[in-house]
Amino acid sequence: MKALMYTKPAKMDGFTVLEPGVCELMDIPEPELKPEEGMKIRIDYTAMCATDAHVVTMGLYGAPCPQILGHETMGTIVEITESGEDAGFEVGDKVVVNGSAPCGCCDQCKRGNDNACYNKIFGQVFKMSGAFTEYVTAYPQQCFRIPDDPPVDPKYYCLTEPLATAMEGIDLADIKIGNSVLLQGCGAIGSIILNMLVLRGCTSITVSDPVPEKRETARKLGAQYLIDPTTENLEERAMEITDFRGYDIIFDVAGVPSAAPLLPDLLAYRGKLVYFAVFPMDYKLPLSLYDLYLKEGRIQTVYTSFYNIPRSMDLLPRMDLDTIVTKEMKLSDGVEIFNEFLRSKNNKIIVKCSDL
Amino acid sequence: MKALMYTKPAKMDGFTVLEPGVCELMDIPEPELKPEEGMKIRIDYTAMCATDAHVVTMGLYGAPCPQILGHETMGTIVEITESGEDAGFEVGDKVVVNGSAPCGCCDQCKRGNDNACYNKIFGQVFKMSGAFTEYVTAYPQQCFRIPDDPPVDPKYYCLTEPLATAMEGIDLADIKIGNSVLLQGCGAIGSIILNMLVLRGCTSITVSDPVPEKRETARKLGAQYLIDPTTENLEERAMEITDFRGYDIIFDVAGVPSAAPLLPDLLAYRGKLVYFAVFPMDYKLPLSLYDLYLKEGRIQTVYTSFYNIPRSMDLLPRMDLDTIVTKEMKLSDGVEIFNEFLRSKNNKIIVKCSDL
Amino acid sequence: MKALMYTKPAKMDGFTVLEPGVCELMDIPEPELKPEEGMKIRIDYTAMCATDAHVVTMGLYGAPCPQILGHETMGTIVEITESGEDAGFEVGDKVVVNGSAPCGCCDQCKRGNDNACYNKIFGQVFKMSGAFTEYVTAYPQQCFRIPDDPPVDPKYYCLTEPLATAMEGIDLADIKIGNSVLLQGCGAIGSIILNMLVLRGCTSITVSDPVPEKRETARKLGAQYLIDPTTENLEERAMEITDFRGYDIIFDVAGVPSAAPLLPDLLAYRGKLVYFAVFPMDYKLPLSLYDLYLKEGRIQTVYTSFYNIPRSMDLLPRMDLDTIVTKEMKLSDGVEIFNEFLRSKNNKIIVKCSDL
Amino acid sequence: MKALMYTKPAKMDGFTVLEPGVCELMDIPEPELKPEEGMKIRIDYTAMCATDAHVVTMGLYGAPCPQILGHETMGTIVEITESGEDAGFEVGDKVVVNGSAPCGCCDQCKRGNDNACYNKIFGQVFKMSGAFTEYVTAYPQQCFRIPDDPPVDPKYYCLTEPLATAMEGIDLADIKIGNSVLLQGCGAIGSIILNMLVLRGCTSITVSDPVPEKRETARKLGAQYLIDPTTENLEERAMEITDFRGYDIIFDVAGVPSAAPLLPDLLAYRGKLVYFAVFPMDYKLPLSLYDLYLKEGRIQTVYTSFYNIPRSMDLLPRMDLDTIVTKEMKLSDGVEIFNEFLRSKNNKIIVKCSDL
Repeated sequence: MKALMYTKPAKMDGFTVLEPGVCELMDIPEPELKPEEGMKIRIDYTAMCATDAHVVTMGLYGAPCPQILGHETMGTIVEITESGEDAGFEVGDKVVVNGSAPCGCCDQCKRGNDNACYNKIFGQVFKMSGAFTEYVTAYPQQCFRIPDDPPVDPKYYCLTEPLATAMEGIDLADIKIGNSVLLQGCGAIGSIILNMLVLRGCTSITVSDPVPEKRETARKLGAQYLIDPTTENLEERAMEITDFRGYDIIFDVAGVPSAAPLLPDLLAYRGKLVYFAVFPMDYKLPLSLYDLYLKEGRIQTVYTSFYNIPRSMDLLPRMDLDTIVTKEMKLSDGVEIFNEFLRSKNNKIIVKCSDL
Repeated sequence: MKALMYTKPAKMDGFTVLEPGVCELMDIPEPELKPEEGMKIRIDYTAMCATDAHVVTMGLYGAPCPQILGHETMGTIVEITESGEDAGFEVGDKVVVNGSAPCGCCDQCKRGNDNACYNKIFGQVFKMSGAFTEYVTAYPQQCFRIPDDPPVDPKYYCLTEPLATAMEGIDLADIKIGNSVLLQGCGAIGSIILNMLVLRGCTSITVSDPVPEKRETARKLGAQYLIDPTTENLEERAMEITDFRGYDIIFDVAGVPSAAPLLPDLLAYRGKLVYFAVFPMDYKLPLSLYDLYLKEGRIQTVYTSFYNIPRSMDLLPRMDLDTIVTKEMKLSDGVEIFNEFLRSKNNKIIVKCSDL
Repeated sequence: MKALMYTKPAKMDGFTVLEPGVCELMDIPEPELKPEEGMKIRIDYTAMCATDAHVVTMGLYGAPCPQILGHETMGTIVEITESGEDAGFEVGDKVVVNGSAPCGCCDQCKRGNDNACYNKIFGQVFKMSGAFTEYVTAYPQQCFRIPDDPPVDPKYYCLTEPLATAMEGIDLADIKIGNSVLLQGCGAIGSIILNMLVLRGCTSITVSDPVPEKRETARKLGAQYLIDPTTENLEERAMEITDFRGYDIIFDVAGVPSAAPLLPDLLAYRGKLVYFAVFPMDYKLPLSLYDLYLKEGRIQTVYTSFYNIPRSMDLLPRMDLDTIVTKEMKLSDGVEIFNEFLRSKNNKIIVKCSDL
Repeated sequence: MKALMYTKPAKMDGFTVLEPGVCELMDIPEPELKPEEGMKIRIDYTAMCATDAHVVTMGLYGAPCPQILGHETMGTIVEITESGEDAGFEVGDKVVVNGSAPCGCCDQCKRGNDNACYNKIFGQVFKMSGAFTEYVTAYPQQCFRIPDDPPVDPKYYCLTEPLATAMEGIDLADIKIGNSVLLQGCGAIGSIILNMLVLRGCTSITVSDPVPEKRETARKLGAQYLIDPTTENLEERAMEITDFRGYDIIFDVAGVPSAAPLLPDLLAYRGKLVYFAVFPMDYKLPLSLYDLYLKEGRIQTVYTSFYNIPRSMDLLPRMDLDTIVTKEMKLSDGVEIFNEFLRSKNNKIIVKCSDL
């Protein structure tokens, strides 16, 4: 079967990329379902995530190479074991497949800290080494049944994983209805977060992004103020829009070091600033604790939570998916999927992996 | 000037109404602005609230009689004192006027429990004895400036007070994005709460109301499931819609004793049930603590919070006000305003009180 | 081996007990460790819980009969399988053993609602049918390693389960430091909750209990006001102690229907009332929603959470265990353990189940 | 009357202190009670705060000079106006006097953001220019009656203001019972926070402070682990104490730039780090967002809240005040009060300002 694989790591000097890594469309053997696993799944759709790109371009997480890329996925069960059936699944079920699941046995799992599980290794423990391919095998713990006759096209369920991560940020931001909000960066995950901020009752919804296509997506999703930071003064505009109070809530999804330090200055009294993006491993934000103290501000970071997956699937039909997904491609497009992502004109790209 | 007044109290035997009270359109002298007050305000619009009706029909709160009715209001400053100017207001400003304000001196105020203020007497301390009239005088503490060039018709700011009360319920319900929700009763305040639940990212949004017009409003506001409890089995439908999990969040805005006891049975594990309505003073809900315990459920009631008013004004432009306001009347319509409300076909009725 | 067993169910007419059930000390075969389990454990100490008593006396939960009673327990691993070792355990480890564990596969588990797990059957899925005996077998998911050289006598770790349940109530009560508190009922679990309320920074700590021995325990644990409800007027005393504000937090751990309805009247503005006790299955609290609304009050019930267990073990050394445990008995005391509990003079009774 | 005054500002080059400011004990006229104020108060006790010292030594807040220092105070009403009586006070009442109060009229006050009040100027609006003196005049809004026959010596109520500020930090840290905690810096306010952390049910309570006297106070207040960062490796000890999980909660009260950057590394998964201290105005914390992201960590700063004052007075009797107050001095000690504070051997110094 075909698989889009990360085949050569980036050359790094410390944290500096000397030469980016390589990904290629390869032919690999189809996986066989083992008795201890639960099901074999034909991948229907997998979405492209910035993480996939950063693994290749800058060795993010020190992820092992080679591996199949892609972790935002949904498919159809084609083969099942007894443990899969015991968990209530059957052949033909459409499912969201998560790259991992908590072990349930370690100290962190027993504390409910699912995503700090000591034994969960991304894309490994549960044997799913990536979803830009045609078939994977999985455990019942990592599979989530898509309802029959879902209110949206089942392909969109491949966005469940980024929704769950965005949801973690939304939960941790502790937003009150009517809170003003600024979003810096409206790309792939940014557009999902924007959609949720709109759905979360925010006001003075402001999006700053240098890419015109992304500002246009933001407008469609309900942003009330659009800022091009390359031609406008973000600080002045922010103060004007918020009547000099600053924003109650700020999300940074850009992850651009040069744009990060201004944000604390734009917070309102008791405001909360969520640095959602994954910043470069060697970047240090210069943070004025005195200024933050005067406004009793908060800085929050966001990993993700496995436990958000079912709630994300519940939420999916309320999302504006047609606007968020700006391009649909095919697995056979191979490396062009990456290149299209890196051109930075799209929000979400989803990839059809099998003939349905 | 004209004023819609509560002129004769209901005859009661304990909590039983023998004969409802009376309201009438009267001619009364225009109030004079006193030096210790801040401003005289021409009332532009006042909205009709169930509380106004219940004061007359069943002596709610033991409210004093006679008094001018109406407490959801906005108008224009026509005269101002020095203290009004010191607080930043000027003649011509459009303002929301709240019926009261916390004193700032009592133990509850000093604890931030604004609405438990010992000295605040509804519509009295701050001398505004009701807003279904042409002019009132007020203190700066109870006035809130409407922005110049507001993004919605200024008349809609008369809905600020019910928005602030609904917002208190939304805050206290502690809703997570993606939570399923049931709303029982979609009348005046019910439609405002529904609008907020939609804006709060709820899912499986279900509305139960026996009045077809109100279900139609609910549909327009985004309800996904509509139930007529007179012809459908609410419990069966609720279980079917939620896949037998029950609802994460339930709001009762009906305040109908016969319909209240079923709701705890419809809650999901760790669900929260908000009895938002003002129930009859002598009604006791028969609550099974054992059943509630098995699902670790919560019951919440809601008063209101003065501190929500500015945030409600911020939120107003995101509300679907054209759908919520189903009728506009004039002060000269007098008692017919009450009668129209009591016919129960409308969501919010707003009343134009002055020639603008 | 010996086991204290529930051997004959209560005779019931609906919810009325005609004749209580029976428990007996029996000789039963020692369980054998199966390959799919993780470990065999010698029970060192098991604590007596009101739930054990209520299962026998009034058929609580419709629990199956016969079964071994007891579910608050700790012991020592005497035999282990590969899966037990993989999870980091070894022979000789002292462990807390929980009666069940979430399956990790069902919809509720995948939502993080551990205790709503569809497949967890108390004392069954994980094959531990009760801990008032000498040996049990268990799965790694339900075992929690006690630290080497713990700062308190290891026997006290048999109190982990009730601590985890009390902790769930403490978490859900959302207590702020300095909040005033009333505890109704200071028996077994009541004394644990009192200890936590003291540790949680509560003020005006008031305990109402008719039993002098329990009031004395309450005094030792830090209660500042003690009320005997059989001779004192609880409402008058509550208002006097709180300067007529009422209590910010109230816990009912008595579970006595006649004493439950007064409590909402004793709440402060925005107060939270936790009905922690398991009330009779057919009892309905008559709750005035109008009165609760005027104070914006909240009613919370409490089940428990598996995820609290490690945190409870962390907290254990800060608890006043010598005061909470008022009696130590031996498994060979048999039915007398139950009788002593039913005399209602003790807080916690712990039972030594093996010769250490 | 005598007053300890800030008479000469520090010489600064930007944020660098070239020469510290000066404070002196002066003779000044007794203030006269004006009709618009509420009461004249004889100051009984005022506590010394690091803020007082920093105003003098490094021009903190750009506070005006000259002014009377001191803002943590309690005294006795000696003269009263009608507005003071209307608010329920009388001559002879002992009261806590807060340096300011929210105006109740501005946008921030109307949002309940009491301490962001636009019109509140520290020690000015409410005319109390400092409390290291014999008499002040005040408004009812800033006075809080101490109960008759309080359970602790009334002098200790001069600690209400720092308790209210510490309480804000405790509230914002969102501590769960059983959470592990590290406190860096156990001086004046540090010892108050430590006392609250102990009262808040924390575990693995660890205090790092280079001063032996302060570690000794920490031990008396209940710290379980004491670290001297000048001779021990804080990171190694922290990991050892927390079994390599890190701390759930960390408070920095040292405010020492060189010691601040290590703290995020010591956080547990989902841990919360409270930078409570007021850091130098030009200091920037170098914060690794990537590392914080991996643990989903949070940074919180703390201003204070006026609304905490009554709750702090409620809590006072549960605090270990005899341990926190390590020295009592007299107003006539003058500048020596400052010098003693700057020697850094004490926790709280309280100063008797009048002959009682």
